[in-house]
Amino acid sequence: MQLLNAPGTRDCLPDEAIARKRILDTIKATFERYGYSPLETPAIERFDVLSSKYAGGDEILKETFRVHDQGQRELGLRYDLTVPFARVVGMNPQLKMPFKRYQVDKVWRDGPISKARYREFWQADVDIVGCAAMTADAELLMLAVDVFTKLGLVPVIRVNNRKILEGLAQLEGLEDKKDAVIIALDKLDKLKREDVLEELAGITGKDKAESILGRFTVQGTNEQILDALPQDNELLQQGISELREVLAYCAGADNNDKQSIINTQSTKDKHLANNKHLANPIVIDTTLARGLSYYTGTIFEIILPGSEVKSSVGGGGRYDKMIQDFLGGNQQFPAVGISFGVDRIYDAMGGADKKTTAKAYIIHFKNPQAGFDLAKQLRAAMINTDLDLVGRGPSKCLQYAQSQGIPFVLFLGEEELAQKKVRIKDMTSGTEDTVGVADAIARIIGSQD
Amino acid sequence: MQLLNAPGTRDCLPDEAIARKRILDTIKATFERYGYSPLETPAIERFDVLSSKYAGGDEILKETFRVHDQGQRELGLRYDLTVPFARVVGMNPQLKMPFKRYQVDKVWRDGPISKARYREFWQADVDIVGCAAMTADAELLMLAVDVFTKLGLVPVIRVNNRKILEGLAQLEGLEDKKDAVIIALDKLDKLKREDVLEELAGITGKDKAESILGRFTVQGTNEQILDALPQDNELLQQGISELREVLAYCAGADNNDKQSIINTQSTKDKHLANNKHLANPIVIDTTLARGLSYYTGTIFEIILPGSEVKSSVGGGGRYDKMIQDFLGGNQQFPAVGISFGVDRIYDAMGGADKKTTAKAYIIHFKNPQAGFDLAKQLRAAMINTDLDLVGRGPSKCLQYAQSQGIPFVLFLGEEELAQKKVRIKDMTSGTEDTVGVADAIARIIGSQD
Repeated sequence: MQLLNAPGTRDCLPDEAIARKRILDTIKATFERYGYSPLETPAIERFDVLSSKYAGGDEILKETFRVHDQGQRELGLRYDLTVPFARVVGMNPQLKMPFKRYQVDKVWRDGPISKARYREFWQADVDIVGCAAMTADAELLMLAVDVFTKLGLVPVIRVNNRKILEGLAQLEGLEDKKDAVIIALDKLDKLKREDVLEELAGITGKDKAESILGRFTVQGTNEQILDALPQDNELLQQGISELREVLAYCAGADNNDKQSIINTQSTKDKHLANNKHLANPIVIDTTLARGLSYYTGTIFEIILPGSEVKSSVGGGGRYDKMIQDFLGGNQQFPAVGISFGVDRIYDAMGGADKKTTAKAYIIHFKNPQAGFDLAKQLRAAMINTDLDLVGRGPSKCLQYAQSQGIPFVLFLGEEELAQKKVRIKDMTSGTEDTVGVADAIARIIGSQD
Repeated sequence: MQLLNAPGTRDCLPDEAIARKRILDTIKATFERYGYSPLETPAIERFDVLSSKYAGGDEILKETFRVHDQGQRELGLRYDLTVPFARVVGMNPQLKMPFKRYQVDKVWRDGPISKARYREFWQADVDIVGCAAMTADAELLMLAVDVFTKLGLVPVIRVNNRKILEGLAQLEGLEDKKDAVIIALDKLDKLKREDVLEELAGITGKDKAESILGRFTVQGTNEQILDALPQDNELLQQGISELREVLAYCAGADNNDKQSIINTQSTKDKHLANNKHLANPIVIDTTLARGLSYYTGTIFEIILPGSEVKSSVGGGGRYDKMIQDFLGGNQQFPAVGISFGVDRIYDAMGGADKKTTAKAYIIHFKNPQAGFDLAKQLRAAMINTDLDLVGRGPSKCLQYAQSQGIPFVLFLGEEELAQKKVRIKDMTSGTEDTVGVADAIARIIGSQD
């Protein structure tokens, strides 16, 4: 036997697992704060569900891990949380609509491995099904801002609407080439304007390419961008009106007059991160396309301009047809959702934490009974507490506590026991004090660490 | 495509997922309270790790889900959390000992399916590696009592020591038949005494069977049971001394004189559940064997005598050789751990919860902006809040809130808006009141629900 992980998978030792758990707990608590409920689905799905025409598509299917049971059934590991969500909606007609659910769980993709790409990774998805109104889109954007704010990060959310993209393509008489145009525009994010222009020109001819790029790269406030868009067909009118409605809800009743002054093209600038009082973190970006996926209306992508993490840390949009297509039948299932990129958020948060959440470590000079009794008092006071179980000498114990980053060490020698006191050492400042147990507890609870 | 789960797997809709999350959160928080840190390992492992001689054994290997990646590597889904733990210990020599870790995660076994047996299920494992002292065993028992107490359940923990079982077998001259004897004794739990006697007689002859059963089924307090055991060989002496030490730590310095008065044979009686001040929930049961697994010292099994759930809700013990055998080499890895049966605990807790954790639902009479503004205030006050996103009439909204079991509904009509107030309806009592937002918030936070 070789001691190895399966290719593309890895362990998270406590310092990573603690940091990740803190992120996931914050995300889940915020989802519930907005009235979303947890849903659990199995890791293993029937392969015919995963490979359904309206599920993830061919690319993703190639990367699906195949599983067989003893009955030689064709099974697979889920590659996302959306297909299981659609299956659950179809199998549970008793669910009351709108159904607001979240799922924070692992997914598997048997794709190429890189430093930033694993075959087993977390997704944190939050979706509403059964609500066609823009209130749902707006609520999810507010929720996303709240998630990042609670994590101490400063997000910018680029929003657009698929109907605007399709309306503009229609306006240019490019309906038959709209997918290629959208793919080209989607690259404005990464390529130079000239390069995108060249790619577009190859599809539409040079003149049209200039005209399209001009229409798509209007700069200014959200209001200025919306005002500059043509309204010459129904798709454009709908898309603009939907975006206006979403933005108005997000701004809030008191803030409708304070229009964002953020320039779309500068959303990735570092200085934004320093502005904790960002008037409006939600900015229209008419070049945002989010690939050729199943979106039908609002689309959005979350970035952290002040962070080392340059790629998006979340995204999503409205997909009013996908669940109906997946399930077949006549019932409509308008839906909108966001997926948060847990691993990138982890990187943006600075990675690993301490090796333990323990706040106190008890050194009892080979009197474990006294150690257990003190630990019991600390634990009853909600303090995560570790103690010497091995029976080591005090300096080895101190080294251990130090290596784990535990902020307080409590010494329980004969003298302290006789006085019913403890000697408390603050491992950050190095100061020591002999105090009563209640005082020690108060000091640990009162510390910032 | 058929809309079906893979055989032996199931979804947890919100009412189940909320109840399960509450249990898992309590378990994890208690693990951390005792200084254990989270470890995450991948669901997918190399098959040669899972099938190593000292891993789960042949039975479990037959039930291992096989997975293949595009490189046709032999992989599998983990069937427990102990083998991955041993692998992590072997791959990370930098880990400081003792290493106290927990892992709460899913495992997969492709076995027969029944109502209570799924192919994908939760395990909650907590282990210490690198500590041979009985302090570790004692800490885990205290932790287990604390977990169940925090969940509002009243546990009884049956403890024994493998050395006592082996010492008694040695004493009877049955070392070569000790596995068969242990398997027979293990059935005292489920079979009648006469039936176990018959099975034993088939192995050892009738006289010896009587003698063994007599030695193993001593009744009385923990102290009486220990006193009645023979001390004729080293194994017996060690086992008894280890048990005494563990029990003394668990009783606490103040409680060493208060010996438990629980009769081993009555540990499953209902009346125990009514005794919330159980002097000592830890009772010696010399018939406890825990199968033929890798245990070397202390063994224990947790039951809930007052619950409908009759099988054990957790168990574990000391396994001082398994990790060394698994890894090979000369380094010793004494270890002790507990695995909690999450699904049985879920059943014992009474199953499903409400369909949402939302405490408030806002009905805004088609004024979503006002609804969002009120929701923002409630959410800032840490109240999980849902609101009408669809734009329905008030009676449909009320039905929805009722169906979800949300305890408070806030009406935000024109009159209330003009007065800067809300009408709050307590869905349990049915009473309604028009109050300021701060009062509504205080009432919701102050409610027991």
